Amino acid sequence: MLKVVILGAGNVASHLCKAFVASKEVSVVQVYHRNKKSLHFFPTEVDTTTCLLDIKDADIYIIAIADDAIKPFSKGLPITKKLVVHTSGSKAMNKLSNTNRKGVFYPLQTFSKKKAIDFSEIPICLEAENETDLKLLKKLGDAISKNVQIVNSEKRAKLHLAAVFVNNFVNYLYQVGSDLLLEDSLSFDLLKPLIKETAAKIETLKPTDCQTGPAKRNDLKTIENHLHLLEDSPYRDLYQKLTKAIQQNYNHG
Amino acid sequence: MLKVVILGAGNVASHLCKAFVASKEVSVVQVYHRNKKSLHFFPTEVDTTTCLLDIKDADIYIIAIADDAIKPFSKGLPITKKLVVHTSGSKAMNKLSNTNRKGVFYPLQTFSKKKAIDFSEIPICLEAENETDLKLLKKLGDAISKNVQIVNSEKRAKLHLAAVFVNNFVNYLYQVGSDLLLEDSLSFDLLKPLIKETAAKIETLKPTDCQTGPAKRNDLKTIENHLHLLEDSPYRDLYQKLTKAIQQNYNHG
Repeated sequence: MLKVVILGAGNVASHLCKAFVASKEVSVVQVYHRNKKSLHFFPTEVDTTTCLLDIKDADIYIIAIADDAIKPFSKGLPITKKLVVHTSGSKAMNKLSNTNRKGVFYPLQTFSKKKAIDFSEIPICLEAENETDLKLLKKLGDAISKNVQIVNSEKRAKLHLAAVFVNNFVNYLYQVGSDLLLEDSLSFDLLKPLIKETAAKIETLKPTDCQTGPAKRNDLKTIENHLHLLEDSPYRDLYQKLTKAIQQNYNHG
Repeated sequence: MLKVVILGAGNVASHLCKAFVASKEVSVVQVYHRNKKSLHFFPTEVDTTTCLLDIKDADIYIIAIADDAIKPFSKGLPITKKLVVHTSGSKAMNKLSNTNRKGVFYPLQTFSKKKAIDFSEIPICLEAENETDLKLLKKLGDAISKNVQIVNSEKRAKLHLAAVFVNNFVNYLYQVGSDLLLEDSLSFDLLKPLIKETAAKIETLKPTDCQTGPAKRNDLKTIENHLHLLEDSPYRDLYQKLTKAIQQNYNHG
C-alpha cells in the first residue's frame, strides 16, 4: 500500500484525493492545508491537519498548490530526504527544494470543483531524479490512470503550453460564441451539439482533416459578411487574426 | 409521407439523405447531382438523376450545395411555385429565386464524409415565407431531430458566425496544439482527454465558469515563459492576442 500525504486543498488536490481513496493500492494518510475550512471538502475518513509540523510519514508527498507557491512551500517543509512531488504542468522539477528527493506528478486535465472526473483516461506525466523514485511514482500513477507517461520538465512545459491552446483558449472561444448569440437573444444551447462534435471528431481524425469554414476555403464573401456583423464588436480583431492564420495554413495567405 | 428531392451530393446532402431514409415520415423521392460519380455514395434504394429536367414531383426541394452556387442554381431550376429551401447558415433566404416558394432548412452541425452522425440532437433552424410552408418544414425537421427552431436570416447569420468561432477556430487551435507537441515528438493523444473534458464542461457550466489558466489569473511569469517557448513560432502572435483578450475580460488588461 502506497502511503501519500497531499499538501493543498484546491481542485487538483481534492480530485486526486478522491481518486486515491477509490484505489486499493493507495492510502491517503493525510491532507494538509493551513486553512481548516478548505479541508471540509475532503472525505471524512481522511486525516487532515492545518499544522505542517504534524504531517505524517508517507512514501510520497504531493504538493498541489498554486504554481508560484511551490518553491517557497517546498523549502519550508519540515521533512528531509522524502520523495516530494508537485503537480504543475508549467514548473520545472528543480523548483522543488533540495532538502528532499524531487519529482513531478502532473495530471493533464482541467479540474472544476463542481464536476466529477474519471481519472482512468487522464494522462499522468511523471518525472523523478532517479529510477527508484520514478518506479514509485509509476505505481502511484498506475493506481488511478491507464495512461502514465514519463515526461521531462522541458517537454512538460511544451505540453502545458499546448494545453493552454486547446483548453484555455478554446474555452474562451466558447465564451465568444456565447456572447455573440446573447446579442441576438439566441441560446448558447444551440451551439452545444456543434461543440461536442468538433471535439469528438479529433478522437479519430487529425485536426487538419476536420478543418472547414470560410477561412479554409478562402470564401472572401462570407468573411466580409462576418466582418460586417462584427463591425463594432470587440471580437473583430480576433476573427481577423484566426481567419488569416487558417488562410495562410491552407496557402490562401 | 413527406416527399423530398435533394439537390446536391456533398456532406450535408448525404447526411440529410441518410437521416430522411431512416425516418418513417419522409420519402426521398430523388437525389440530383450533375456528376454521376457523386451519386454513388447514396443509398441504392434512392432514385438519382444527373438531369435537372428529370426531377420528380415533391413537397420540398432541398438545395444542399456550396453557398455561392445557391443563387444561380435556384434560378435555373425547371420548377415553379414549389417549396425550395437551402441548407446554408450564412446565406439569407431571399438569395433563392422568386420562381418558387422560399425556405431555409439549416442543420447546425459539422459534417464529415467519414463520420456518421446522430441527427436527433442537431438543432435545425427553419425559415419560410408563410405559416403553411413553415409547418411543412417543421414536420420535416421533427422527423429527424428533437431540436427544431424557427430562426430568421439575420439571426441565422449571427448563429453561423458564432459557429465559426466554436467550430472552425476551435479546430484550428486543436491543430496548433498538435503542431506544438509535434515539435517535441509528443503525441497529440496526450491532449485528447483534455479536449474532450473542455467541451464536456460547457454542457453543464457556463464558459465563464470554466475559464482557467495563466491569462485568467494574470500569471505573468507563466505567460512570459510561454512567450519564450514561442520565440520563433508562428503561433506567438495568436498566443498574445488570445491571452490579452482573456486578461481584459477578467479586468487584468
